[in-house]
Amino acid sequence: MSELPGAVGLLGGGVIGGGWAARFVLSGVDVALFDPALEAQRRVREMLDNARRAYRSLTMVPLPREGELRFVDSVEEAVAGTEFVQESAPERLEIKRELLRAASQAAQPDVVICSSTSGIRPTLMQELMEDPGRLVVGHPFNPVYLVPLVEVCGGEQTDPAAVKRAIAIYEALGMHPLHVRREIDGFVADRLLEALWREGLWLVHDDVATVAELDDAIRYGAGLRWAFMGTFLTYRIAGGEAGMRHFLSQFGPALQAPWTKLMDVPELTPELVEKLAAQSDEQVGQAETAELERWRDDCLVSVLQGLRAVDAGAGQTLARWEQGLLDAAGRDGPRASDVPLRLVVQEIPPAWVDYNDHVHESRYLQLFADATDALLRLIGVDAAYVAATGSFYTVETHLSHLGQAFAGDRVSVETQVLGFDGKRLHVFHRLLREGEAEPLATAEQMLLHVDAGAGRVAPADGSVGERAAEIARGHEGLPRPDRAGRSIVATS
Amino acid sequence: MSELPGAVGLLGGGVIGGGWAARFVLSGVDVALFDPALEAQRRVREMLDNARRAYRSLTMVPLPREGELRFVDSVEEAVAGTEFVQESAPERLEIKRELLRAASQAAQPDVVICSSTSGIRPTLMQELMEDPGRLVVGHPFNPVYLVPLVEVCGGEQTDPAAVKRAIAIYEALGMHPLHVRREIDGFVADRLLEALWREGLWLVHDDVATVAELDDAIRYGAGLRWAFMGTFLTYRIAGGEAGMRHFLSQFGPALQAPWTKLMDVPELTPELVEKLAAQSDEQVGQAETAELERWRDDCLVSVLQGLRAVDAGAGQTLARWEQGLLDAAGRDGPRASDVPLRLVVQEIPPAWVDYNDHVHESRYLQLFADATDALLRLIGVDAAYVAATGSFYTVETHLSHLGQAFAGDRVSVETQVLGFDGKRLHVFHRLLREGEAEPLATAEQMLLHVDAGAGRVAPADGSVGERAAEIARGHEGLPRPDRAGRSIVATS
Repeated sequence: MSELPGAVGLLGGGVIGGGWAARFVLSGVDVALFDPALEAQRRVREMLDNARRAYRSLTMVPLPREGELRFVDSVEEAVAGTEFVQESAPERLEIKRELLRAASQAAQPDVVICSSTSGIRPTLMQELMEDPGRLVVGHPFNPVYLVPLVEVCGGEQTDPAAVKRAIAIYEALGMHPLHVRREIDGFVADRLLEALWREGLWLVHDDVATVAELDDAIRYGAGLRWAFMGTFLTYRIAGGEAGMRHFLSQFGPALQAPWTKLMDVPELTPELVEKLAAQSDEQVGQAETAELERWRDDCLVSVLQGLRAVDAGAGQTLARWEQGLLDAAGRDGPRASDVPLRLVVQEIPPAWVDYNDHVHESRYLQLFADATDALLRLIGVDAAYVAATGSFYTVETHLSHLGQAFAGDRVSVETQVLGFDGKRLHVFHRLLREGEAEPLATAEQMLLHVDAGAGRVAPADGSVGERAAEIARGHEGLPRPDRAGRSIVATS
Repeated sequence: MSELPGAVGLLGGGVIGGGWAARFVLSGVDVALFDPALEAQRRVREMLDNARRAYRSLTMVPLPREGELRFVDSVEEAVAGTEFVQESAPERLEIKRELLRAASQAAQPDVVICSSTSGIRPTLMQELMEDPGRLVVGHPFNPVYLVPLVEVCGGEQTDPAAVKRAIAIYEALGMHPLHVRREIDGFVADRLLEALWREGLWLVHDDVATVAELDDAIRYGAGLRWAFMGTFLTYRIAGGEAGMRHFLSQFGPALQAPWTKLMDVPELTPELVEKLAAQSDEQVGQAETAELERWRDDCLVSVLQGLRAVDAGAGQTLARWEQGLLDAAGRDGPRASDVPLRLVVQEIPPAWVDYNDHVHESRYLQLFADATDALLRLIGVDAAYVAATGSFYTVETHLSHLGQAFAGDRVSVETQVLGFDGKRLHVFHRLLREGEAEPLATAEQMLLHVDAGAGRVAPADGSVGERAAEIARGHEGLPRPDRAGRSIVATS
């Protein structure tokens, strides 16, 4: 059972609040958002567009139907009828206290209320609340719809059950909650980031390096490792076979070396602010913020997918989220009785275009294979069945290219089951561009059912076989496709 | 022309020296390595094995023939006859000074000598040297054979030409040299790393979080971004449309907040060392260092490949290196007269494995399509021909799956041209695992030549048509594949 609420109330629609809105909406949760700023609606909608774009290349798993996004005019409206509240107002204690008080008076008593604060201790924020036991800090990182980390921290009055519920909801959103057990200002992650940032400010202040050089010193070096392991594991491995004790004995003395100026904090004089801003302008050149955001998202998607491929860190979080989506898609996806089956509907991502400016031919097969996968899920071939019994394997595919798909096209795959004899499943797919009747490509596929233990062809088991047979019977009345049974005709 | 030297001398074979050895050897450079430690030879050979393994999945581009690795008994032997020297001794000034003095006396005067020091200023190290103008710091990051960053810094006596030469050599090795223009202790990158490390030590000291939690606070959050952008660009984007000035005005005050304890340095008491070491042991569980190194390398490879896909940061460095390798390999690639043609040789990357633990079927077609692309290049279909005349388009493909490929398999595609009539090009591919005669899969493809201007089928032009016909004639004597002309046989 998914831990996701059906509807949530969001207070604040800035960079963080908008990111939450995108994550909830794309996870199928209805959102009511309150932000008095004039620009909030536009910004949140733009962020949702960015997130949609990123998710389309983040995963090939079908996303749930989007939740509804409503902009409301008060805290009370945002909170009414919702099962969860997330506050993302500016980092000022008075503002947060007042919002949280109002939200706690309007919400049902069992509704957990989270704050996105990056530094304020929850104990300070829960003072004016009704039922303060439900206040939990849930501190996310930008962009909220892609970065999985969320620091979770309760205050002195917080009920452990509220912390547990917040963690379950964040996990169902595809995030990685980190429970900060001891309440401190700035929690954990921002303290580490802040230390690096302060040192960077000094290096710019002293003209040792520019902001672009400092950024390069991270992203071409240690930053590549930080995508999957923190400083402690990095140093342990660097210590070699002798491990952490050895590393500390070898490099501990460097802690006393004059390598940082961190004993002091640089004052942000107008001159230093101007230097930082000018260097930052130079670093990005002509790029607009919107462009930089899309670039950042593309990079994050690619790093996350890379980590999923090696089953590490945030890649594991992504894989778990996809499994949850797959499980959920099984519950309310297409039905076996649909004739023909429409198992894949999606947009062609720009990344599928090859160096010749064409959608690479292997991507056509990817779409057809996705449709076959969806068909298998529909007849009950899930992870448990694959492990215990077996699965269907493609043994032959005949592809015909009849037109061209382009990046941005909305396409769907329609699937017709041509036959099933217990072991062999014979299917025919058509790839259609939205609004067109003639397919861009077709694929005929033959699959064989293989027994997991014996490793050889064997009949499909019980209900899987029955469902496949049922679909095959339902499709018997459809006309046989012209291109079924086709072979390539030689040139001579 | 490549800037790579033919032979280099390495002083020191620890984690860093061994990493340099691996990078040079795999780039085709001969290495003479001096390290008096008993374990050095074994360690360096293991590291070279790790690097070989990582490079096989890092790139599909053919690597050059490996350089020779020799272990020698003195500084003089290491340096004799080499064009470049890299010192990677322990971080003690006296040791480095003595090694550099000896190396500078034995080397030809025009040989650039670099030190891997992570913190010592070059001015201090060049004092005893002959021709001290050639001493340059080239500070790499672990593992040296994968992480591209190398900080380059000259001392007071350093000749700018030596800095330039060092940068050219590091670039030819596929690295990203960062010129640190102002000489300071610890250079730039380690200062940033050290700041974060100190703050982490405090958080462990104060029992706010464990080493594993602190590492998670990085790798599920900011660390994902640091793989492609540093703190300054991150904050600029987080500042939204108003940029860096706005960010500083909004978050500048937090610099004064009590968010760090960095004004002080924690003392490494036996108790703190024990706590750090015990938590580190718990973090890695039963994993051996060698295992952790391979895991780290797999993650780095995957992150680098992800960044290459979006043409960002270290991914660009990788792409440039590959282009250099391709240019070098183009001189001795396959010839039109090879029968049959072997146009694709590569390793199956882990990223091709789908959530069912199988290599996704679309990847088989990707390999076959790569072979077809290589065939087209071989007959002269290059960017100019495509723009001016046209190209061949796949209209039909028949795939047969006869076995399974696994991540890490070395595979090749053998291509037989079955026919060419001026417009239609008929090919048959076999996917073979190294050392096996029976194919894992086959693909029969029919391609049509399309005129670029008219957008319709037309004969291939001049030499392209001639070369295609020549290859077809050369393959006439090959037996016709059993599976050519095959169609899918219905279940009933």
